[in-house]
Amino acid sequence: METTATVSIISKDELLKHYLGHRFLTRRVIEAFPEKDFFEFSIGGMRTAAQLTSELLSIAGPSLKAIANSEETPYVEPTVPATKDDYLKAFDEADEQIKKYWKQIPEERFPEMFNLFGQYNFPILHNILYFIDNEIHHRGQMYVYLRALNIEPPFFWERW
Amino acid sequence: METTATVSIISKDELLKHYLGHRFLTRRVIEAFPEKDFFEFSIGGMRTAAQLTSELLSIAGPSLKAIANSEETPYVEPTVPATKDDYLKAFDEADEQIKKYWKQIPEERFPEMFNLFGQYNFPILHNILYFIDNEIHHRGQMYVYLRALNIEPPFFWERW
Repeated sequence: METTATVSIISKDELLKHYLGHRFLTRRVIEAFPEKDFFEFSIGGMRTAAQLTSELLSIAGPSLKAIANSEETPYVEPTVPATKDDYLKAFDEADEQIKKYWKQIPEERFPEMFNLFGQYNFPILHNILYFIDNEIHHRGQMYVYLRALNIEPPFFWERW
Repeated sequence: METTATVSIISKDELLKHYLGHRFLTRRVIEAFPEKDFFEFSIGGMRTAAQLTSELLSIAGPSLKAIANSEETPYVEPTVPATKDDYLKAFDEADEQIKKYWKQIPEERFPEMFNLFGQYNFPILHNILYFIDNEIHHRGQMYVYLRALNIEPPFFWERW
C-alpha cells in the first residue's frame, strides 16, 4: 500500500519524544531565570520570559486536546500564574496533557486539515510542527535574555 | 509490511519543504539587518548575526553532502564572507546544496547512524532535525537583536 514517497522517516512516537526533549530544555531555561527577571526583564519592547511562557502554555496542551477531540475551541489567553514555580507546575501539567492527547490522535489523522482555535486551518502535522518550532523560537529568545542577564543558559543539545 | 507504529506522519519531501520554508524566513531575517549591525551588533557577549549565520552555513550544506556521500568529513569553520550580500549568496548556494543532497539520501537511510563531522553519532533523522532546530534557535536570537535595534522582524509564520 506504500509508495517510496510516503516511506516513514519519523514515527508519531519519535516526534513526541523529540517534542518532549525540547520541552525538557525549555523547562530548564525557565528554571534558569531569577524570579524577578522572569517576570520583568525584556529586550527591545518584547514580551518577558513569563509572557512568552504563557503563550507556550496556551498552545501545547489546549491545542492537542482540541485536535484529539476534534473540537475547534477558541484560543484562550492563559491564566497567568503568579510565581515561576507556578509556571513550572503548569508547564509539567502541559507535558501530561501533551502525552495524554498525543496517544488519542492516530497517525492517519496527521495529514487531515484541522482548523485550530477556529483560526489556523492546516494539516494536523503542520499545526503540531508549528507548536514545536514556536517553542524553539521563543526559547531561543529567552537564551538572549539569560545571556543579557549574565546567566549561562543550558546547552542547546541537552534534551534529557 | 507496515505496522501502526511506523505509519508515516512526515515524508522526506514534506520535511524538506518544511526546512526550506524555515530557510526562506532565515534569509529574510538576515536581509532585515543593517549592514553594520549584521557584523557588529550583539547582546550579552553572544555572537553577532554574521557569526550565527556562519555557523548555519557551516552545517546545512556540508552536513547533507557528508551524509549523502557517507563521508565523515571533519567540521570546517566557514570562510567568512565580507558583506551581507555575500552571506545571502552563500545562503542561497547552501539551499541548492540542501536540495541536491537531500535527493541523494533515501528514506531508508534516515534511521541509520551517521557520525557527522566524525563527532556527532546519531541517526541521520536526528542529525537533520538538529540542523533545523538549531537554525530556528539562532534565528530566534536574531529576532531579539532586530527588536533591540528597533527593527520589525518578519512574521514567524511567513515561510514563502
